[in-house]
Order: sequence, then C-alpha cells, then structure tokens
Amino acid sequence: MKVLVINSGSSSIKYQLLNMEDESVLSKGLVERIGIEGSRVVHKVEDKKSVIEKDIPNHEVGLKIVLELLTSEEHGVLKSLEEIDAVGHRVVHGGEKFKESVLITKDVLENIELMSFLAPLHNPANITGIKAAMELLPNASQVAVFDTSFHQTMPEKAYLYAIPYEYYEKYKVRRYGFHGTSHRYVSKKAAEFLGLDYENTKIISCHIGNGASVAAVKNGKSIDTSMGFTPLEGLAMGTRSGDLDPAIIEFIAKEEEISVKEVLNILNKKSGMLGVTKIYSDMRDVEDNAIANDKVCRLAFDIYEYKIAKYIGSYAAAMNGVDVIIFTAGVGENSPIMREEISEEYLGFLGVKIDKEKNDFKGKLREISTPDSKVKVIVVPTDEELMIARDTQYLVK
Amino acid sequence: MKVLVINSGSSSIKYQLLNMEDESVLSKGLVERIGIEGSRVVHKVEDKKSVIEKDIPNHEVGLKIVLELLTSEEHGVLKSLEEIDAVGHRVVHGGEKFKESVLITKDVLENIELMSFLAPLHNPANITGIKAAMELLPNASQVAVFDTSFHQTMPEKAYLYAIPYEYYEKYKVRRYGFHGTSHRYVSKKAAEFLGLDYENTKIISCHIGNGASVAAVKNGKSIDTSMGFTPLEGLAMGTRSGDLDPAIIEFIAKEEEISVKEVLNILNKKSGMLGVTKIYSDMRDVEDNAIANDKVCRLAFDIYEYKIAKYIGSYAAAMNGVDVIIFTAGVGENSPIMREEISEEYLGFLGVKIDKEKNDFKGKLREISTPDSKVKVIVVPTDEELMIARDTQYLVK
Repeated sequence: MKVLVINSGSSSIKYQLLNMEDESVLSKGLVERIGIEGSRVVHKVEDKKSVIEKDIPNHEVGLKIVLELLTSEEHGVLKSLEEIDAVGHRVVHGGEKFKESVLITKDVLENIELMSFLAPLHNPANITGIKAAMELLPNASQVAVFDTSFHQTMPEKAYLYAIPYEYYEKYKVRRYGFHGTSHRYVSKKAAEFLGLDYENTKIISCHIGNGASVAAVKNGKSIDTSMGFTPLEGLAMGTRSGDLDPAIIEFIAKEEEISVKEVLNILNKKSGMLGVTKIYSDMRDVEDNAIANDKVCRLAFDIYEYKIAKYIGSYAAAMNGVDVIIFTAGVGENSPIMREEISEEYLGFLGVKIDKEKNDFKGKLREISTPDSKVKVIVVPTDEELMIARDTQYLVK
Repeated sequence: MKVLVINSGSSSIKYQLLNMEDESVLSKGLVERIGIEGSRVVHKVEDKKSVIEKDIPNHEVGLKIVLELLTSEEHGVLKSLEEIDAVGHRVVHGGEKFKESVLITKDVLENIELMSFLAPLHNPANITGIKAAMELLPNASQVAVFDTSFHQTMPEKAYLYAIPYEYYEKYKVRRYGFHGTSHRYVSKKAAEFLGLDYENTKIISCHIGNGASVAAVKNGKSIDTSMGFTPLEGLAMGTRSGDLDPAIIEFIAKEEEISVKEVLNILNKKSGMLGVTKIYSDMRDVEDNAIANDKVCRLAFDIYEYKIAKYIGSYAAAMNGVDVIIFTAGVGENSPIMREEISEEYLGFLGVKIDKEKNDFKGKLREISTPDSKVKVIVVPTDEELMIARDTQYLVK
C-alpha cells in the first residue's frame, strides 16, 4: 500500500509518499508560499532535490503540481495516481470529538470545521488540504490524524483549569495538548527499543525544538502534557513564552497601550528565546552562542533547560515515578549538551545517569543512560509522517 | 522589648503585640470595615475577646482605638504607649529594591510608594498603616518586612519570564513570589526542629491555604516559588486560578464579550475551587464534601492536590533533590487527608513515607514521615507575625 501524507499550513503543504510494504519514503517535499509571490515546490526523490518555481494561487493548484511531480518521468516515483491508496492528513485540533484517527467522511469534515474555533489558524488550512486531496484523488481513502488525539486520555484533574466550570461547558476551554502524534510515536518506539512493556511503563517524552512540549505517558496513555488550550502554554520555546502569570497580560497591555490581541501576538511570536536574547529564535543559534560564552544566550539556554527539567520533575510526581525519559525533535535529537546539562544539573535525584560518550552524537535512536541509571534515558528521532501513514494504513485496509 | 506588628489591608488592620523577652503574644486583634458601615474592632487578651463597634472612618482612627485598647484599664496590657519600642509592618511588595527587612526612613517610605504600581491593591494600604503608626507612635522605630524579600535570592533563570526582555527592563516584569515571610519562618523552623543545618538542606515549603504557594529553599535561600509577578500564578487556590494558558484570557474576553480587566477579576475572585465547584471557595467546605463523596468537590480537591504534587516534583528537579517537605498554613496544618493523599499518590518516587498515625492531627509542629522515609515530611504552623517581630527587634536593638 502507498500512502501520501499531507500537512497543510496556511500557505504551505508538506508531503511525503510512503511505501507501506517496507515503510520506506518514496518522495517528500514542500510547497511554499501558496498565494504569495515567490511560490515554489521543493521536491525530493532519494537524494535528488528539484525546485520548481511557479505561480501557486491556492492549495489545490499546489497539490496538483505535487501529484504531477510524483507521476512525471523526470521526478516521478509512480506510474499512475491510482497507485496512491490513501492520503493521511495531519489535523491540528480534534477537540474532544476525535480521540483517535478516523476515515474522513462528510460528517467528519464538518466536525473538523466545527473545531476551527479552537484552532483558527490551523484547522481551516488543514481542511483546505483535505478538500484539495478529495478533489484530486477521488479514489483514495482520506484519513485524519489529530495532533490532540493522543492526549484525550488525560484525566479531568489534568485537563481542567481552575476557572469557572461554565467556560468548559460552554466553550470547551480545557487542556488539549499538541504534538500528540510525535509523543505517541516516540513513546511506543522507546518502549519497543528498550524491550519494555509499553502498557506497563512510565515515560516522560520531551519533544523539544523551537516548538516544544513534554508529555507524561503512563502505561501507554498520555496523562498530562505541557501545552494546553493552545500551543502557547508550557515550556519556553523559540518565540513562544510558555507559562506566564496570567496577570502579566493585562499589565503589559496597559503599560504598552496595546490591545490584548497584540500582547498575545507578542507572546506567540516575539517571546521565548527571541524575547530573552532580543536576536535569536532558533535554538541552534542560542546554543552556539551560549557555548561561546555569550551571557544572554547562556541565560536563555538556562531558562529553556530549567523549564524542561521542572516539567520532568512535575510529571515524575504526576505518575509517582518514571522509567524512561525521551528526548526528541530538533533540540532533543541534536543537542548533546542540552541532554547532558538537564540530566546532570537537575535529574540526579531520580537516579538518572548519562553516559557522556553514548550521548555525544546527533539524531539517532540510542539509549544514552548508563547501565546502572535508575531511569533509562533515550534519544528517539521523531517521525510524525510515518505515524500518520501507519494510522492511515490501519484504517484503510 | 515590646513590638507591635501591623498588617494593614485596604479596609482592615490586623495587629499583634509581642513581648520579645519570651516572644509571647500580649494581645492581638483586628480592625474591620474601615471606612465602611459596620466597622468594629475585635480585640483579644489571652482568652478574653472584646468587640468594640464604632465608626472608623480611616486607618489612623482605627489604630488610635487599638492603642487606646492596649493601654486601657479594662482591655489593656500596657501602662503607657511608651512601652512599645517598635512597630513591624507587613508590606506586600518590596520589588527588587528591598531584599531584606528595613528600618523605615523617609527614603524607604518613598520607595515603598514607588513599588505601588506592582501591587496597586496592597502597597497603598500598607503605606496608610505605616503613616498612621508614625503619627501615633512617634517615638517607636518603624520597620517594614516584605512578602517578596525572601524570594529575592532566586536566580535569573527562575525569575525571568520568556517574554521580551525590555518588559523586565522597562517595567520590572518578573517573578517576585509572595508569602516570603511565611516560607522563611517555616523553613528555618523545620531545619531547627529536625536538627538539620539550614544552610545545607533542600527544603520544599508548601504554604497552602485559600491563598497558596510552594517555595524551593536551597541551603537557606529561596531559589524558586510558584507565585509570580502577582499572587495569581501557581497553585489552584480558593478563588484564584493559578497557572493558565495565557491564550485563554483573550479567548474568554472575546467569547464572553467582557474586558480583560473583568477576565482578570474572574481569575482572581471567581476561579480556583469556587470556579470548579461553583459553590465553595473555602477548602474546608471542599474537603468535607469531597470526603462525603460529592463528585465535583472530589474533583476540585484532586485538582488542588495534583497541582501541589506537581510543584513539589518540579522543585525537586530545580534543586536536584529534596531533604524536607513542609506543610503549613490553613490547609497544610489542618488537613491530614490532603497531606496523606499528596504523599501517597504522588511522592512515593521520592522515597516519601508517611506515618498515618503521626499524621492524624491538626495544627501542631510535628514530623509526620516514618523513620525510614528518604524525605522528612513535617507540619510547621506558620507565624508571620512572630517573624516580623523578630526582624523588627533585630533591626532596632
């Protein structure tokens, strides 16, 4: 079975075509700047990269070019579009309705639209991608895989905020959590790799990149996670503030004479590492400069690490213990120094011991704790596309 | 030396007169409803309580009545006001300026006024109390003891939010923390009682009442605390939400068509236990009903406990370990069931073991962990007044 995985943003489409016989990636790429000047497609087959610059007014046109590329003689990997059995769509918000991935029906599509009030920037873009795929691949099954679903197992005490209960009843204001597909993928993978029973293991999964969240996965189920009603809450991120005294919002709006909408925009786009350093939003820059003894970057790096360590501690309490700590995503996979500093400065009390040699690498599935470490620490490269393709295959066959 | 301790609110004065020879309380009381109809003074000497109903238009009149009571034949404990050597004032916000208690000078008073923009409800009331005391007891030394001072030892990584750094530079937006006098008192007391070296011990202090905060005290210094820029952040409290996805504020303002100021008012006064249960803001009511199997109160109780447990876990990470956990304030001193549930459901991984018999009591200084518990757990009744009086004595003599 061949599965096309699609992640539609407001002006982009990320895609990946997988052969599910061996879970290999046949082709992948990115449609950029849809509806904006300078639109283009970056298309990859194995190591060969092609860039097609072309006017792309909307998602349907963008996807049409991708499908032409996939079947073209020069760039193609398919003889006919009929070979695509199914399309797996990443959908950001499934609300409380979608606790698992689903085959997309008219009813499902309507419900994803209904959920748009919870993710006004993301769900409409996802829907545009789904509609384009339904139009262009009418014989393929369409599947929706939600970023929120994995966290739907959280208990009430974890997902309810201590605010008037009517806001939950009327508007469904609660913790949803995101990065669910990633947390699900890496936590399963870690248990498998370590030979542990997934249904009987306490895992803390740190998906840390420029966007970042931590999840507590107890016996195969997410029981808490740091992102909340939106992806703003939790860790300090590339440009997002994460946790904050709620009173700060009113204070800044007043002092700066700006609207709350503007404050929220600043908290999402001009805070985090960018806010603290005033220059860098990318953790690679922050890390390089921290290592080169730039004081401000060292401080930003410390803040980033400190928040992660505190969430690990809090989730150890939430599960009354932890067997495995996972590092994944951009920073988690590629920053040995961050993994080492978090483990050594903060996690010794859990019995965490890192093998510095094993830890000194980037981006590979590998255990980095010592044999006598009480908690296994492991790096798992995340693969949300593969997880989406697997769900799609599972629902289709 | 005799010290009068004063805590002035916007319409109240709490007072306590201490004889510092033996740290005994000679008299204490409360002036209520200042400037409001039905104003009165409740005055206590030992077990004798007197209620004086009288028109009290302002703090100066209120304090004058208190001083008359203290020297009166019927209710008095002093022959003359000259016996009061010093007055210790609780001041809520000392900003970054006041890292310790200070003798009040003209310059100090001006600085406390300058700090009012950070605590617009509290500091002006404190200043009113100070001015009244200076007027009525011109020969007594006046001392200010700040709720924030103890937390001024926090490192940058703990006190800075991941927001644009200019907000810290321009407006001093940062974590301050509150309940500092209480955390300082109980953490010192715990080390003393347990025979531990305060300068070499990792303590997590849970000041939990209807207002509530947790502090990490490492080697005698606060290195982190759950309340932040204001007392809204952190734990779920009687009527305060505590931690929240910042994006919720804009969402609720929009959906409910109310101002952000109104949202903040709701987060401060109609959230927390009151928000979840819709009825009860007092933890005693929540606990009673939770024990009687009321589902909603059980949920609220769970949320309250869960947040405390997560903060304990996160501060164990912040200090890379914990030697002592303290429970204090209304709930901490008087709820054996909460102490037991937090310890048993969440803290086993730290090696915490509670002796249920030792734990089965209210409001006494007592260790409640078993001899083989890896972390000592102790109940310490807080006494902010005594701490203020001690600071006052120290600065005056």
